[in-house]
Order: sequence, then C-alpha cells, then structure tokens
Amino acid sequence: MTTMSEQPEVVGTAAGPLVYRFGDGQSDGDGDLRNLLGGKGAGLAEMSRLGIPVPPGFTITTDVCNAYYDQGRTYPAALEPEVRAGIAHIERIVGAAFGDAGNPLLVSVRSGARVSMPGMMDTVLNLGLNDVTVEGLAVRSRNPRFAYDSYRRFVAMYGDVVLGVGRDKETDEHPFEALLKVKKQLRGVELDTELGADDLKQLVQEYKAEIQRRIGVAFPDDPWEQLWGAVGAVFNSWETPRAVVYRDMHGYPSAWGTAVNVQAMVFGNLGDDCATGVVFTRDAATGAARLSGEYLLNAQGEDVVAGVRTPQPITSSAGNAAHNNGGPSFEESMPEAYDQLERACSTLEGHFRDMQDIEFTVQQGRLWILQTRAGKRTGPAMVKIAADLVDEGVIDEETVIARQDPEKLIELLHPVFDSSAPREVIATGLPASPGAAVGRAVFSVDEAADWVARGEPVILVRTETSPEDIQGMIAARGILTARGGTASHAAVVARGMGKCCVSGCGALHIDYQAGRFSVVTAAGETVTVERGDVISLDGTNGEVMLGELPTLEPALPEEYERLMGWADGVRRLGVRANADTPEDAARARAFGAQGIGLCRTEHMFFGDDRILAVRRMICAEDETERRAALDEILPMQRGDFSGILRAMAGFPVTIRLLDPPLHEFLPNTPDELREVAEALRITGQQMEQRVAALEEFNPMLGHRGVRLAVTFPEIYEVQTRAIIEAACQLVAEGVEAIPEIMVPLVGSEAELAYARELIANTAQRVMDEQGTRIEYTIGTMIELPRACIVADRIAEYADFFSFGTNDLTQTAFGLSRDDSARFLPAYIGRNLLTHDPFVEIDRDGVGGLLQMGLERGRSAKPDLKVGICGEHGGNPASIAFCHEAGLDYVSCSPYRVPIARLAAAQAALAEPE
Amino acid sequence: MTTMSEQPEVVGTAAGPLVYRFGDGQSDGDGDLRNLLGGKGAGLAEMSRLGIPVPPGFTITTDVCNAYYDQGRTYPAALEPEVRAGIAHIERIVGAAFGDAGNPLLVSVRSGARVSMPGMMDTVLNLGLNDVTVEGLAVRSRNPRFAYDSYRRFVAMYGDVVLGVGRDKETDEHPFEALLKVKKQLRGVELDTELGADDLKQLVQEYKAEIQRRIGVAFPDDPWEQLWGAVGAVFNSWETPRAVVYRDMHGYPSAWGTAVNVQAMVFGNLGDDCATGVVFTRDAATGAARLSGEYLLNAQGEDVVAGVRTPQPITSSAGNAAHNNGGPSFEESMPEAYDQLERACSTLEGHFRDMQDIEFTVQQGRLWILQTRAGKRTGPAMVKIAADLVDEGVIDEETVIARQDPEKLIELLHPVFDSSAPREVIATGLPASPGAAVGRAVFSVDEAADWVARGEPVILVRTETSPEDIQGMIAARGILTARGGTASHAAVVARGMGKCCVSGCGALHIDYQAGRFSVVTAAGETVTVERGDVISLDGTNGEVMLGELPTLEPALPEEYERLMGWADGVRRLGVRANADTPEDAARARAFGAQGIGLCRTEHMFFGDDRILAVRRMICAEDETERRAALDEILPMQRGDFSGILRAMAGFPVTIRLLDPPLHEFLPNTPDELREVAEALRITGQQMEQRVAALEEFNPMLGHRGVRLAVTFPEIYEVQTRAIIEAACQLVAEGVEAIPEIMVPLVGSEAELAYARELIANTAQRVMDEQGTRIEYTIGTMIELPRACIVADRIAEYADFFSFGTNDLTQTAFGLSRDDSARFLPAYIGRNLLTHDPFVEIDRDGVGGLLQMGLERGRSAKPDLKVGICGEHGGNPASIAFCHEAGLDYVSCSPYRVPIARLAAAQAALAEPE
Repeated sequence: MTTMSEQPEVVGTAAGPLVYRFGDGQSDGDGDLRNLLGGKGAGLAEMSRLGIPVPPGFTITTDVCNAYYDQGRTYPAALEPEVRAGIAHIERIVGAAFGDAGNPLLVSVRSGARVSMPGMMDTVLNLGLNDVTVEGLAVRSRNPRFAYDSYRRFVAMYGDVVLGVGRDKETDEHPFEALLKVKKQLRGVELDTELGADDLKQLVQEYKAEIQRRIGVAFPDDPWEQLWGAVGAVFNSWETPRAVVYRDMHGYPSAWGTAVNVQAMVFGNLGDDCATGVVFTRDAATGAARLSGEYLLNAQGEDVVAGVRTPQPITSSAGNAAHNNGGPSFEESMPEAYDQLERACSTLEGHFRDMQDIEFTVQQGRLWILQTRAGKRTGPAMVKIAADLVDEGVIDEETVIARQDPEKLIELLHPVFDSSAPREVIATGLPASPGAAVGRAVFSVDEAADWVARGEPVILVRTETSPEDIQGMIAARGILTARGGTASHAAVVARGMGKCCVSGCGALHIDYQAGRFSVVTAAGETVTVERGDVISLDGTNGEVMLGELPTLEPALPEEYERLMGWADGVRRLGVRANADTPEDAARARAFGAQGIGLCRTEHMFFGDDRILAVRRMICAEDETERRAALDEILPMQRGDFSGILRAMAGFPVTIRLLDPPLHEFLPNTPDELREVAEALRITGQQMEQRVAALEEFNPMLGHRGVRLAVTFPEIYEVQTRAIIEAACQLVAEGVEAIPEIMVPLVGSEAELAYARELIANTAQRVMDEQGTRIEYTIGTMIELPRACIVADRIAEYADFFSFGTNDLTQTAFGLSRDDSARFLPAYIGRNLLTHDPFVEIDRDGVGGLLQMGLERGRSAKPDLKVGICGEHGGNPASIAFCHEAGLDYVSCSPYRVPIARLAAAQAALAEPE
Repeated sequence: MTTMSEQPEVVGTAAGPLVYRFGDGQSDGDGDLRNLLGGKGAGLAEMSRLGIPVPPGFTITTDVCNAYYDQGRTYPAALEPEVRAGIAHIERIVGAAFGDAGNPLLVSVRSGARVSMPGMMDTVLNLGLNDVTVEGLAVRSRNPRFAYDSYRRFVAMYGDVVLGVGRDKETDEHPFEALLKVKKQLRGVELDTELGADDLKQLVQEYKAEIQRRIGVAFPDDPWEQLWGAVGAVFNSWETPRAVVYRDMHGYPSAWGTAVNVQAMVFGNLGDDCATGVVFTRDAATGAARLSGEYLLNAQGEDVVAGVRTPQPITSSAGNAAHNNGGPSFEESMPEAYDQLERACSTLEGHFRDMQDIEFTVQQGRLWILQTRAGKRTGPAMVKIAADLVDEGVIDEETVIARQDPEKLIELLHPVFDSSAPREVIATGLPASPGAAVGRAVFSVDEAADWVARGEPVILVRTETSPEDIQGMIAARGILTARGGTASHAAVVARGMGKCCVSGCGALHIDYQAGRFSVVTAAGETVTVERGDVISLDGTNGEVMLGELPTLEPALPEEYERLMGWADGVRRLGVRANADTPEDAARARAFGAQGIGLCRTEHMFFGDDRILAVRRMICAEDETERRAALDEILPMQRGDFSGILRAMAGFPVTIRLLDPPLHEFLPNTPDELREVAEALRITGQQMEQRVAALEEFNPMLGHRGVRLAVTFPEIYEVQTRAIIEAACQLVAEGVEAIPEIMVPLVGSEAELAYARELIANTAQRVMDEQGTRIEYTIGTMIELPRACIVADRIAEYADFFSFGTNDLTQTAFGLSRDDSARFLPAYIGRNLLTHDPFVEIDRDGVGGLLQMGLERGRSAKPDLKVGICGEHGGNPASIAFCHEAGLDYVSCSPYRVPIARLAAAQAALAEPE
C-alpha cells in the first residue's frame, strides 16, 4: 500500500494514561496491551502480574510516540507529570531516589515496538549518573570501580545514542573505544577489567571532553535532562534510515510507533556473584525442548548482545558443546539462580504458550528477569517447536499454523553442503543461523554492494556487526563474525533473514585496511583470505571453509511433513510452481506443488544447442527463413515439454508461449554476431542493421507477448506443435500429460480470439497427424490494466486466467521494475510507499485491478479457473490477498511452494467465520 | 475500440428481401435504408421514387455481405432466386434479355457501402458480354466498334477486378494497357478511338489469352457466371487491405459491410451525342451556389473518375475557368441535357437537403442519372454551404452543426502561401484540394515512407493515383498528379484527408525509373525535379512551385464565425488548448480556447539560452550544484509563465510541472557534452558516467513526473516559485492571471499530498515575499491506471484532475507509442484493432479507466474540475466520449480548438433528449 501514514489516534489523558507502571507483583497494564506498550512493555507488565521478578519501572505508550511525531517531535503536555509519577513509583519500590547524592536511582531507557526489532532501537543504561551520584553509587555498592565503570559506560552510550557521537567514518573506530584503548595501552593492560576506578574516572572526563569537542554541547548532568534526552532518542530512533529499512523489509508500518520502557537498573557486573544472560526456553536453533542461551559472569546485558565478549552456555547439555570457549555453564556456576531461572522459564512459556526469549541478570546472587518475548528461531526449530507444543497439548494445530512464519521454511528447504565432499576447514565459530553459503569474502557494506552488482555472491566478514551493516547483510549470502554469540546482532538478524551465519569465530584476525583476514588453523598453519577469495560457511555447525563446496538438497525434518499436512488440510488455495525445466518441475512436485502455473518457454531458448537457431529465427527477413530456423527448434522444444509434462504427470502444466521482446535473445559479442550472420548468409553490416531494427525505446511496452504472434504467427504455431506432439506421445505411453497453453500480454478479446484460433487449429492438425486425442486448454495471462477492464469479453475465449502481477504492477503504477531503484528508496524514505509493490502486492491499486479482472471474468464464465503466477505468488501477504480475492491457485518458485502452502492455510484460518 | 467484428444479424427471407429493385419511377426500398442498401443503393431507390431517370436495377443488401463473410464466403441460399428475379425486372423494363444473342442486357455491378469510399470498392461494367452477345450488341447499336470496345473494356475490367490480373510490379504497367499500347503502335495510331472494331476484337482475344496465361483459368463466357463472379468480387473487396486501411483511417467498422448494385448499363460512348460526367449541386471547392463538376464526351463513367483523360467543366461560369483544356462546357455542348440535369440537381438537393454529388450519362441525347450522394467538399465549401442552406431556410442550425465534419475545419485553419512572396511557378494543374504544402518530391509509397521516416515532409508525385497509393497519400503533405480531374481518385481522396492536392497537371512528364519529373514551363524552359528536391503545391489555385514558399496564417471566412457561434451556443464541454509559448497561447485564444489545459514546462527547457543550465541541473551531483543551476533557470521560467498567463488573462492556465525523464535533456554530441562538463568543472569521463547513470530501460515507466520531485524537490520548488512570482507581478499590474499548477504521473494520494505540500509551502513563501495574494489551484494528471483506481483518495488532495490519455493509453494497453509501429499495422491488417488507440480513445479500456477515475474522484469531491489534455482532446470521436463521460473540458492543440468546439457541439446534439 502506498498510503499516507495513518493518522494517529488523538492522545490525551482522556484516552487513558500515557504511562503504565509495573513491578512488585503488580502492574497498570498486561500482556494484551502489546500495541500500546510494545512487546517489551507488555511482557514486563504481564510478567510482573505473574510474580516474575522484574525490576520495577514504567512504559511510555506508543500513542505518545505517534503524538510526538504528529506534533513536530514534541511531547504531549500530560506526559511530564505521568513520567514523574512513574519515577516516584520506582523510587518507592527500590528505596532509592533519582538524582540523590547518597542513594541514587539508576534506570535503563529502552525502546519497545509492537514486534521485536533487534538492534534497531537505541538503548541507554545507567541513566541518572553524574559526578555527584556516581560517588553515592560507589559508597553504596562499596565498589568505586563498578560505579565509575557504570558511569563511563553510561556517558559513552548516552554520547553515542542520544548525542550522536558516532563511529569515525574513516577508521571505523568509535572515539570512546579509541580513548579506552589508549588508556589501556597507557596502563599496559589488556582487558577493560584491569583498569582501576581512577582510570575510569579520567575516561569519563575524557569522554565528556570529546563530546563537547565534537558537538559543542556539554554532557547533561541533570538526571531529568538525561531522562528526557533518552526518551527523545528512543522516539527519534524509530525513524532512522536503518529502522525504516528494517521495517520495510518486514512490512511493518511506520504508524505502529515504539514505546519507551524506563526501568530500575539491576547490575550483573557488581562482582563474580553477578551475571547477565539471555535464555531461550527451547533451543532456538534446533527446537529441542531444553533451555538454550548464554550468559556472561560479571557483565552488563549489553555485553551479551553486542558480542564484544563471547559468552558461555546456560546449560551443560551436549547441545551446547559448540560453545567452545571452555567456560562453565550458568547451570554449573550459579545453580540456585539457575533453578529460579528454570522455574521462570517454565512459568513464562506456560503462560505465553510459546517458546520465550528471556533476558536476565543476577545481581549479587538474586535473579532478575529483564524481559521476555516470543523467541526468534530458525526454520527447523520453528517446525519442531510447533509439533512439540501440539504433542504436549499446549496448543492446537490451527494455532500452530497461524503462528508460523512461512518465510522461515526457506531455512528447511535450502541446500546444505555435501557432507561427503572434502572440507578444508580453516576455522570454526558458532552455528548462529543454519544453511550453507558460498561467496567472495568482503569486509564492508560497500564492498558487498560492489561485488553483488557484478553478479558475485558474497560473504560479509566483520569483527562484529552493528545495525549500520544491515544493507551488507541483506546483500550477502552469509555472515561471518569474529566476535559475538548466537544472540549477537549478527546472529539474530541473520536468523531473521533466514540467512546462514557463523558468529564468534575468535580465530579470525581481520585487517579492514588491507581487505583480508587470517586464521591460525587447528594444524597451526596461518591461512590468509584476501578480499574476493571464495569461502564457504556452514551455518549448521559453524565451520568456515576455503573455496566453494558442493551442496546437497536438504533433508526435511518429519515435523515439517506434519506441519505441511495440517496446512494442506486447512487451505483452500491451490499451490503450483513456476518451473521451466524437468528438474525444477520434479523439485516443485517434491515440495508439494499441484502443477505448474508458469512454464516460461523463453528460458529454453537460451540453451547452447539452440540459441543460434533462435537467433536465426529472430533475424530472419521473411517467413521462409524464420520457419527454417523454427523447424530446428521444434524437436528441442518438444523434448523440453515432454520432460516437464512427464515430471508433472497427472497435474496441469501451464505453458506460456513466447513472451519477451525478441531482442532479448540477440547476440551481444562480435563473435556471436558473426556466427549468426554467417548462418543467415548476410554481411556483418546487414546483421547490425537487423539487430538495430529490433531495438526498442520501452521494451516492456513493446513488441512482445501475443504481439509476436500477430506479426509472426509461425512462432506460436511451432511452439503449439511442440507442446501437442509431446503430450500426444506421452499420452500414447500412458503418461497423463495435461498441458494448458497460455497466451501472454493479451489486452483485448480480439487478440486472444486470434491466438486461440491459431493454437486450436495447430493442435487439431497435430492430433490428426498423431491419431491421438489429448485434453488441453487455452488461457491467457491477465497482466495489463486493459485486460482487467475487459476481462468479461476476454473470458469468452479463455479456459483460464493467470494474473501476471509483475507486469500488472509495472503497468498499473507506470513503474519499470528495472528503473525504479533510482527513486524507490526516496519513496520509502519519505514514507510515500510502505513496501516495494514488486515484493508484496499493492492491494489498493494492482489488487483492485486484479479483483475487477476476476469478477468480470467470472461474470462471463462462472467456472473460469483463475490463478496468479507473478512473483507475488510466493509472498505470504500477497497469498493472503489471493485467498481473499477468491483465486483458485497461486504459483511460485519451487522453493517457495511450502511457504505458499503454509501461507494459504494461514489465510484460510484468518478468514472471519 | 479493439472489439471483434460484431456478429451480423441473422439473414434470411424472414428478415426481409435480400434484393431490392428500382427503376421506372418505382422501387422496393427508399433513401432511409442506407444501412441496408448502402449509400448508392438507397440513393438509387430514392431517386427512382422521385421520378429521376435512373437506369433500372436492383441492390443486394449489406446483410448479405455480412452473411457472406459469416458463412465462409458463401451466399445465403435464398439469394439466387432473388437475383434472378432482379435480372428479370431489369429485362422487363429495358426490353433486353441477359445473355440473349439478339438483344443482350448488359449490366454494371458496383459496390455501395453505407458511406462513400471512393475508389475503394471494385466495379465491373458491361457485364453480360461474350463472343455471342457482343454481336447482338453490335447489331442493335449499329456500332460494332462500340460493341467490341465495350467488350474489351469489360474483359479488361473483369480480368483485373474479379480475376485479379493486376499491374506489373516491376514496370508498374497493366498488361491490358500494354497490349493496347502495342496494338496502337502496330496500327500507327495515338488514340484508343482510332482503333477499329477488328483491332478491338483481336484485343479481346489477346486479353483472354493473357488471363489464361496468368491465372490458368479461362475467362467465363456465361453471363450468369460473370455476374456471380462480380458480386463475389465486390464482397471480397470489402476486406482488401486498402479498404481496411481506408476504413481504419475513418473509423468505419468492418461490420457495416457493402451492398452490391446491379444496374442496366447505359452508354456515354455511343458517339458524339453521348457523354458521361459528375456534377456537384454546389461548388465542392468553394461552396458557391452553382453547379460544378466535369464531363467527357463519348466516354464511359470510369474515364472521368480514373482520370485517364482530363474532362471539361459542366458549366461555363467563371469558377470553372481553371479547367483549362479549352473544350466546351456541358452547358454549351448539350444544352437540353444540361437543362434536364439542372432540374434533376435541384430536385435531388431539395430532397436530400444537402449538396449532392451526382453521376450521370447521356446516351444518344437522353440523360440518365446513375447515382447521387452527399457531396464531399472542402472545409471552406463545407461552412459556406452550411451557412447558405440555413439562410435559404432549407435546414436549421442544429442540423447544420450535426452534419459538419469537424476534421474539415483544418482546411480553413491551415496556413496558405504568402501571396507577396515571389513564386517560381513551373506548372499549373487543377486546384483539387485546397491548402499549401511543401515537401520533397517522391514517386512511390515506399519512397514516401522512407523520407518521412527520416523526418522529411514529402509531396507524392504520380501520373495518377490508385487505391494502392493510399499509404503514400497518408504519409505525404500534398499530392500532385499529371492526369485526372477534380473528381479523380487523387482529388477525392485528398479532399477526404483535408490534404492539399493539385491534379491533372498535364505538363508533367514523370520518369519513375530515374526518380524525376520534368515540365516545360510557360516560358518554354525545361525544368527537371529530382527525387528529394523540395517543391511547393498550392491546392487553392493549382500552382506547382520550385523550392519552399513562405506561408501565412489563413483568413477565416465569415461563415466560419457563424458556424462556430452556433456550435458554442450548443456545446456544454469547455475547450482549452495545449500551449507552451505566449504565441501558441495567443493563437489558441484567437481560435476560441477558453484557457490552457496543458502548458508543458519541459519544452521551455530546450531554449538556447537555458539548455546549458538545464543540463548542469540534471548532471549535478548534489542539491547545491542543482540549486545553483535552477537559480539561473528561475528568471527565464518566470518570463515564460508571465507571457503565457498574460496571453490568457482572465482564463485559467494549467501548468504542468516537469514531467519527462531527465535524460531527455542530455547532450548528444561530444561538443555539448564537453560544454556541460566544463560548466560543472568535471572531466569528460565523469560526465559520461553521469550521463550513463541516467539511462533507463523503460524511460516511459522510469524516473519522471512527480518522481522527480520526490528525489529532487528543489525542481518543483523553483518551478512553483517561477509561476507564483509571475502571477503575483501580473496581478499587481492588474492582469487577471489564473495559474493552475498540475503534478504529473501521480499514482497514489501520498505522492500528491507530498507534492501539494511542497507547492503550497513554496507558493505561500513567495506570496509572503511579494506581499500579494493570488488565486491558484493545485491538481494532478490522471494518467496511470492505478490513479484511476484510487482516484477517490487522490481527489482529496486535488483541486482538479486532468486525464493524460496518452500515457493512460500506453499503460492500460502496455503499449509504447514509440515502439508500436512495428506491430500496429499487423493489428489493423488482421482486424485486431479498428483504429489506432492513440488517435481515437479506446472507449472500452482506457475509457473505462477514465470513467472510473472520474466517478471515484467526484465521489470524494463532487465539485472536482475534470478535463482531458491528451492528444485525444482534439479528436471528434474522443470528444464525444468526453462529453458523454461528463468531463468539464477538453484541451487540444491550438489548430484543433475549432474542431473541438464543433465536435463538442455535435456531442451535445447527439445526446438523447
């Protein structure tokens, strides 16, 4: 939809509170208020109600965020007193006071949107510290080093997130990190923890001076000023380009807004009886019914997510053996807290009836649950957890189907490396996101874009990733990081994208400047990988290999089959595949395709054995030359169709007759030009003239589709002959071949009537020759706005319609897919489009045309079979639309067939009773 | 419309007779049955009823034609007996018998469609002759030479028209003409008339042998076989490519069909008391109330139309002085027959209440009227006759308006040659169709196409024209023929096209082979014009000049103003003009435009004084560079707008902000590229890169229209500033400037909301600066299918809509106007399109979208002002559609404003009460 951002509802105290408090076993809100409080806020409210030990705090609602943007980035007047009441609520429970010199209350300020957007929203911790309160904290904690480290972290984080002092563009280094490094070098120490309180105190002043130097503004010492700055930063971060990119990628509208969670700080870094971690109530990678996750002793929560240190596993079970840094598990090091955590996990999963992703901190032996949310999981984990929850009687099958993310199935369906092939493993990291990826090593977003633009797949190699790397991660086939666990930014984002990722591969030494990394292998050998060298990543076991490894088709888990079975029992929409070869057809069938919705004949024209004949056909001056070339192509096309029809025996196969403008097949190189000229016995100059004569200003709107058949009927004639001959032979063999012949780019009934006559006459002639009758139908693509308008008349000559929503989107919008890159980002940046209409169908415009075409077509022919074969056929949101519109089937690429089956089932379940 | 040919109604005797007889003061049909009997048949029936002396005959209906095509080119069973009865009817009246050896009946077989399609339909005369009957004719007429000449003509015509023995492709000579020439050479004579009966008798046998040799079939001797062959040939000629081209040009549907008229032959070539001719009841060139036309003594009717001999005038009045071949007028040579003719003309014009075009023959002193029809006339004649008929009380003003052909007004509006400029007249022919034409001399259809493709205007020069030349006549600016009168094929067709034509210029000697013509001038000098030399034709006085003559604006006759006044009193649709300069705006205003519906700002960008700044703007790397260039453009744009707003003071001026893809403005030559690179201080290579970066695959669907404003808001900002500054200054001067700012290529309400805010903010700022308030509105083009679908939402941000039907046609059909030439001829040839949708709006598809956009737009904003500014705004059929759809106005090129005013009035009159 290219709608304007929706108008936010009026905000005011009349519409309810702007701030919701929680803590101490009570709360103003609950888990149902996800839209208002965000996922995190709703979870905290719900947990507090359930008696889960969450640090007290309050949530500023998403309505406030919308009001903030609606009123030119200012707050509603009613907000300030409510925030003050919220702070008083926290002060009362924890017994500390905000800005108090003796017993200061410190808070965290976090974003929290309706859905989790990891790494996207900015967070500030330890807020409330200044030169006065830090002393109070030092006294009360009896740990000046901790106090000043907290202060240092706070100033750094606030400087970065709120005041905008960022990473240096040239050195890619953060100024605060640089100062920290210098300080460590000065002190001759290696670890942050080796620095003393005085060092840290100095660092705070150095950080503040750096801030003043860089932005010309002093660091705010007033805690209230700090708080309002942080709240504003959270709201502002909702509209940063990277947040917008992420939302766009997931189709989340801008109008959702984010909530702000202000919560008492608890500390995992007060000593060795402290820890912080993330736990999944089930294994997020495999779905196994055991706790997974990781923790760090004596650390703040950000350390786990940021991946600066590689954490240790939660449990000691075998499944966590991959965490190979040798440290003890949480279960081992803090058995009491682990027991409390296990109970909390059980309570929370039981309550939410789904696998939970829980952040926790242990402060001086006491467990605090910081947040819970439905855990992101891999595709395999998704289906395993789904089946297990059904088996455990927690949820029913329909609930399972509705909850799945169809896109995640990709992870089950993509190839894995052939385990029989020899592997030159140079390093092993954490299996952060499953799959197999091969590509050229690149070290930055720009490098990734450059290589991909040249058609080369890439692996993005980074010490760690941050949200600035998102575009590079989208471009890459896989992601490899030197630091960070399976909950690190790289891991979480890669899993979200269904992309292979190996994280925390500590052996990597990356030299960004030189564009290379080196590792010392297990055998003690040093291997260097230069920018552009090909490497292979195994996201399932964390291995990194030199060169390109061969891949194998994935084996699907048995839970997958169960899930698909449930989905098939629910869905009404048929699912076919777009496939142009017998191999693709067989794969599609294995994935559950109920036929082929689009077999593009032009792809067959590019075969080495026939491209010369195709070119002779195109460059022919007259029908005789053209027929001679077509006669050579005929037996090959017949072979193609025979293979595909055989692979799909018993299911319909929709074959689209030649569609693209002929110049797409023309030779590009002088050698190829000469070859064709010789075959046609014409001079090079004549050849150039013929090629030039085929050039078009707007090929998309040019001489293509059925227009080719109007000028060169012999092309469709020969293609029809190839199809019918193939089908006759198969039927004679007892193979059930069901061809559906499809005419592209029809805009009027006259065109289809003409093509139908041509096809039907040819088919009749071939069947007479072969002495065989076969069943076949003739239909058309509906891919032009005019075809939608006059669909009732076109239907009179069509046995079926197949909506070509790629071209329909291009013509409805007047938007060339090939040229839109120049301005679509600006559209998304300015909120003029909420998503790319080529990815998710534009319901209002293109969808409106489709609906009109469907209704008018069926008004003339009530039993007209209608499907869709554009790229949208594999997009869940678009599939939902197709279901609602009343199509008979969708057709998509073979790998997306399971996704479409699931999405179709979800669409059926989403239907109002 | 791209409809299938409509289903013909069921034909059978139950639905009425298939054959309608006439003659002897009676008839089965009448003048109201034009659709069934064709124009010619209905006229004959009516004339017979009125006592006009028409040769007896019968008409086979157009229903039979449709049945013929519907049943695979076979006749309905009921036809044969009815035709036999028809022949018997003729036999009874003339007292001769078909095929009778002693007193044979001869008939003509002619086509006759609902409207006159001169030269398009084939005709056979003298049918019924064979080796036996010719002797009977010789005896009865006492003129063996006449009998054999008739026989020879019949065999030649039948061989050509029915049996398909045509002109030799290489020599461009007809085999029968060649044989005739040889015969004359053998006999040592110059004129056909100098050949004797025996020569002609031999020629008949030679013609028959040639036919046998060429097509392997003997010439049919049985008169009935001859008759059925000729009837079939008439029907078949309805679907010949040239007939289809002509119909397409005029928008006549295939389903009209043609009737066949079978009529007793009368002879204008039995001796010097015989004649044949064509008379117009008023002057077809000027409209003057006097008989015009021409005749030939001792000739058949075909001789007049074919232009083989140059005929003499009907009357002796001064207006016919141009017929300069010195022969006596009909009035002089046959005063009695002339009196009869004058009476018949008066009766017929009085009856039909319109100027008539009447074919007649005098056989041995007795006048026969062969046919009458509404006479084709020039534009000036059209308005003069209209005004005169009103003044004479024959018809009322509304009838006049309804009867005009709006396209003919072009002839009143086009420039004429400046009479003060010196003329090098090399020859003078007949003023066959008025106007002034300049172009390169070409001698064939192919040459015409070649030069026109290179952008060169051409004059088609032929000895005479035939229907095979139609495409060349369409391509040419003017037509010059060596032979043929003002009723010759060239003259009639040229007038139909509103195209300048000089015919019968006997001084011309054309050498097709060499590609040149020569004339001996009045001064005795021989001038040779080579292919490609520029000549000028004056269609108003018949002069042919060397070189290019300067032209002057036409002076409009006073009748034109009266006609326009009547039209303006009737029409409801507003008429505006598309104009981009103050000159065009002033001309449009003079032609009656009520404002400007489309002022394209991009055309202003091409001025020599600013194209460099425009190119700098386009190639700018950042906003600063771009603004610097735009600041240079600003004062020039302001000047442009000021001039146009002033020229249209008091009327609205719709200014479209920049629309085309920026690369359209890019330099093409290395010099220009260097100039821009220097201005931008970048290298040639950088320049090339910037130019390359702007290239698009499908520019039509690319980065253009409002998309430019999304990426480069400063462009629309500066354009808005120029408009509002110009308007403010004019208003301060007391000039009523009414700018309407129009945003192109809008597909969603978000885009228009964005652009509206940008424009409104800028306008506000300028008005604040200037301290002036002006009235202005902001609207949008509706030119994308999606915009039609979501027009209700777009309307919320629009003060007006203007349908851009050019782009809407391109996107609705998925058809690039620039690329469609490759296949549109095949579409028309195969009857897949009845007309070019870029010329006449496609009512079903594009019209359907327009209607949807209009209805949805008005549903959201009932007072939305809606117009159309595509090329269709000047096309009468499209204007009728706009009227029916309920648009407020159409906008077209200045020269078409009068056409639009008239067409709008016709549309209002055509409305059911």
